[in-house]
Amino acid sequence: MNAPLTSGHLLPHTHPRDVPAALIDALRQRFGAQLSTAQVVREQHGRDESAFSVAPPEAVVFAECTQDVSDAVKLAAQFKVPVIPFGVGSSLEGHLLAVQGGISLDVSRMNQVLAIAACDLTVTVQPGVTRTQLNAAVKSTGLFFPIDPGADASIGGMAATRASGTNAVRYGTMRENVLALEVVTAQGEVIRTGTRAKKSSAGYDLTRLMVGSEGTLGIMTEITVKLYPLPEAVMAAIVSFDSLADAVNTTIQIIQMGVPIARCELLDATTVRIVNGYSKLKLREGAMLLMEFHGSPAGVQEQVDTVQAITDEHHGHAFEWAQTPEERTRLWTARHNAYFAGVQSVPGCRAITTDACVPISRLADALLDSVTEAQQSGIPYFMVGHVGDGNFHMGYLIDPDNPEQRDAAEALNHQLVARALALGGTCTGEHGVGLHKMGFLVEETGAGAVAMMRAIKNALDPDNILNPGKIFAL
Amino acid sequence: MNAPLTSGHLLPHTHPRDVPAALIDALRQRFGAQLSTAQVVREQHGRDESAFSVAPPEAVVFAECTQDVSDAVKLAAQFKVPVIPFGVGSSLEGHLLAVQGGISLDVSRMNQVLAIAACDLTVTVQPGVTRTQLNAAVKSTGLFFPIDPGADASIGGMAATRASGTNAVRYGTMRENVLALEVVTAQGEVIRTGTRAKKSSAGYDLTRLMVGSEGTLGIMTEITVKLYPLPEAVMAAIVSFDSLADAVNTTIQIIQMGVPIARCELLDATTVRIVNGYSKLKLREGAMLLMEFHGSPAGVQEQVDTVQAITDEHHGHAFEWAQTPEERTRLWTARHNAYFAGVQSVPGCRAITTDACVPISRLADALLDSVTEAQQSGIPYFMVGHVGDGNFHMGYLIDPDNPEQRDAAEALNHQLVARALALGGTCTGEHGVGLHKMGFLVEETGAGAVAMMRAIKNALDPDNILNPGKIFAL
Repeated sequence: MNAPLTSGHLLPHTHPRDVPAALIDALRQRFGAQLSTAQVVREQHGRDESAFSVAPPEAVVFAECTQDVSDAVKLAAQFKVPVIPFGVGSSLEGHLLAVQGGISLDVSRMNQVLAIAACDLTVTVQPGVTRTQLNAAVKSTGLFFPIDPGADASIGGMAATRASGTNAVRYGTMRENVLALEVVTAQGEVIRTGTRAKKSSAGYDLTRLMVGSEGTLGIMTEITVKLYPLPEAVMAAIVSFDSLADAVNTTIQIIQMGVPIARCELLDATTVRIVNGYSKLKLREGAMLLMEFHGSPAGVQEQVDTVQAITDEHHGHAFEWAQTPEERTRLWTARHNAYFAGVQSVPGCRAITTDACVPISRLADALLDSVTEAQQSGIPYFMVGHVGDGNFHMGYLIDPDNPEQRDAAEALNHQLVARALALGGTCTGEHGVGLHKMGFLVEETGAGAVAMMRAIKNALDPDNILNPGKIFAL
Repeated sequence: MNAPLTSGHLLPHTHPRDVPAALIDALRQRFGAQLSTAQVVREQHGRDESAFSVAPPEAVVFAECTQDVSDAVKLAAQFKVPVIPFGVGSSLEGHLLAVQGGISLDVSRMNQVLAIAACDLTVTVQPGVTRTQLNAAVKSTGLFFPIDPGADASIGGMAATRASGTNAVRYGTMRENVLALEVVTAQGEVIRTGTRAKKSSAGYDLTRLMVGSEGTLGIMTEITVKLYPLPEAVMAAIVSFDSLADAVNTTIQIIQMGVPIARCELLDATTVRIVNGYSKLKLREGAMLLMEFHGSPAGVQEQVDTVQAITDEHHGHAFEWAQTPEERTRLWTARHNAYFAGVQSVPGCRAITTDACVPISRLADALLDSVTEAQQSGIPYFMVGHVGDGNFHMGYLIDPDNPEQRDAAEALNHQLVARALALGGTCTGEHGVGLHKMGFLVEETGAGAVAMMRAIKNALDPDNILNPGKIFAL
C-alpha cells in the first residue's frame, strides 16, 4: 500500500467522532460474526481508489439483508455515529473514507438478484450485486444492463455516484436507468421510492434524489434498473488519427449528426502506448477512437457508413474491426484496464483523476488544452474519455511522497475544471464529488444550490450520520 | 363556465390564508400594471382543466423576468402568503387552484427562447414558452423538442408536472430531457441547478428534484432542455383491431421486442367514435393504434416490417398510412383533440381524468378491466393511452351537478388506481398529483416516502408559501 496522502482542503472535514464502546457492544450483540473490528478489515474498508488516506472506520458491519442495514443504522443513530456504506471499494473520490470516523456498512453480501422481469425489461437487485454479476444473471433472457463504468462496481455504488461509463452515450447513466429503490433512512426506517412503471409524476423524484447522493441521504437496499434487448448486431471498430484534434472533432460531428453510437471512447497516443504495454497489444500509437455500434444489421451498417465518412473527413486511418465477441471483449478489456495500466506504468504512484464533462461542441476546447498542459508539466499521465458524452478523464500519476508534484497535479486539475466550468460543463461527469471535488461543486453550482443541498441533508439526516463530510461541508 | 365541483377529500386543504392589504399595496408599488386584482383575471387564474373549483387567488402578478419572480416571492414571503406559479392553465389535477388563497404568479410573459445551442442539441427557454412556440423557434436548426403532452402547455408547467405525452416512448419525459434550471427559491433567492453537459455527478440532483415538484419547492425561471435531430424519415400509421385486447397485446409485444417506436397511442372504439365526430374523420370505429416511426429510411422500414408482423399476429386490420406531413398533422391533431372531443361529447360535463401507468407486461391487466368497468357503469367516458409507456387515461364525463355520478366516477378511479398499484404501477404517469391524487400518492409510495417529501418541503419552504396544499397535506 502506498504512503498516506492528504490534501489541504481535506483537513477541515477530518475530525473523527467518538465511537462509544457501548455501540460496538450493541453491534456485536446484534451482528455477532457479521461485525469485525480487525485492523486488516477496517483498513480494507477505509480506503478506495482515491489518492487520500485517513484513519479507517472503527468497525465493519457485514449486512446480509435490509433488516441488518436498518438495525445497524438505528444503533448508529442512537449514538450519533457515522455510517459509511461500502460496496466493492472502487470509488475514485474518497467516498468511502471515514473522515469523521464511525462504522463501515459493507453491503457486498447483499448480492442477490431479486427479480428479473424480462417481460418488463426490469430487474431488481440488492446493492452488492456487481454489474458483471447482473449481466451474467440476465444473459439467458436476451437482455442486458448497459451501464459500464469500467470497474466491476456494485450496482449500489454505481447508483450512489450516478455512474455511467462507456455505453452511456446511447443508454444513459444511472440517472436514467434506476426506476425504483428501497432505501434505509438516517432514522433506520425502510422506505420505497418509484415503481416499476417506466414513467411517473407521483410527487418528488426521491429516486433521483437518492441516485448520486453518495450515501449521504439514505442507504439503498434494493435497486430496480432498466434492461435492454441485446442488440441483434454489434460491431466494434478502432480508428487511429495523427492528431488528437482530429479524433475529438470526429466525435463532435458524430454526436451532432445524431448517430446513435453505443460507445465512443478516446485514448490519446500516450495512453495507447501505456495500454499496449499493459495489455500486450499492438495498437497504432496515435490518438485512437474505440467505437461500438448496436442495432439491426442494416441499422449498424448505416451508422458505420456515416461514421466512416466523418472519420475520412478528419483524416482518420482505416477502421480496424473487432467483429467476433472474443475480439470485442479483448478490445474493451484493454480499454477498461487503461486506468490500471496507467497507475502501473509508474511504479509506486497514485493517480489524481479528473472527470470533467462539457457540452459536446466545447469538447475540443476543454480537452486539447488539458492534454497539452499535462504534457508540458512533465507529470506522467494517462487520458481516456467517454467523449461521445463530452466526458474525459486525465489521470495524473504522482509520487505520493513528492508534495511539489502533488501540488502541480492539483493545479492542473484546477485549471482543467475551471476551463470546463467556463465552457458550460461540470467538474464531475460520473465519479461524484466525494472529498476531492467539494470546492469545485461550489464553483460549479454556486453557493445557493449547495445551500439547498445542505438544507435537504439537514432535514433528512439532522445528526449527520450518513457518510458525513462528503459532497459539502456541514 | 361549468358549476363548481368540490370533492370530499379536497376540503381539508382548503383554508385560505389572509392576504394583507399591505402586501397588495407593496406588490402594486413594485409591479404597477403588472399586478391585477380584477375579478375576471383572478378567476381565470383560479381554475384549470380539473373538475375542482375553489375561490380564486387574491391577485395576479404578471412576471416579465427573473427579478420580477424573485421580488414577488420575497414580498409574499415577508407576509407568509402563498404564491402559485401559472403557465397556460392546462393542468388537469388542480395544481393552479388557490386552496390556501394567496397570489397567482403568471409567467406566461416570460416567453423568450434565450439560447439555441444547436451544436450541443440544447435550448434554454423562459418558463412561459410553449412547446409549439419552442418547436417553431428551433425549426430552422433541423432539431426538435419531442415532449408533446397534447395541450400546448408551457415548458415551465411541463417541467413542474414531469410531463411526457405521445413521444415519450422513444424520447423520454421531462425527467430525462431537462438538463438545467434557474430557480427562484421560497426565500426569493435565484439558484442554478445542473449544467449544459449531458451528464453530471455533481451533488444532489436538484434539477430532477425540481422537475415534478409542481411549484412547491421553487419557481423555474429558466429551463434548459435537450433537442434532437429531426428524423430523416417519419412514417405514421393507423391499425384498427376488432378487440381492445388485440390492440393492447400488440403494443406489449412491440415494446418487449425493443422496437424503437416513436409514438404508440391507443384509442378504444368509443373514443374513435367521439374523435370522428369532433374532427370530422372517418376512422374505422374499432380499437385503434396510432403509431409513428422515426429513423433513417431503412431503419423506419425495419420497424414497420416488425410491427406489421406483430399486428398481423394479433388480427390487426391493414395499416393505413399517413405519409405526408399534412396527413400526419391531421392525424395527430385529431389525437391531441381527443380530450376536448371527449369533454365536448357530453354538453355541460366535466372530466375526471385518470393517469395510471404500469409495467408494460401488465398493461392488458390494468387497461381492459378499467374500460369494461367504465362501460358497465353507464357513465360516458373516453379512453386514450400512451400505451407504449404503459400509460393510459380514462376521462369520466360527469354532470357536475350530479353527486351520485361524481361519486361513481371517483369509485371507478379508485378501482383503476388500486389495480395499477397492485400491478406495480403508479397513480400518475404524467399529470402529477396536484389535489386529486394526494390520497393515491400515500397508497402508492407509502407514508415513509411521503414523510421524506414533506421533510424536504419543510426544509426548503418552512412557511409553506410555494403552491401550498398540493402533492401532500402539510
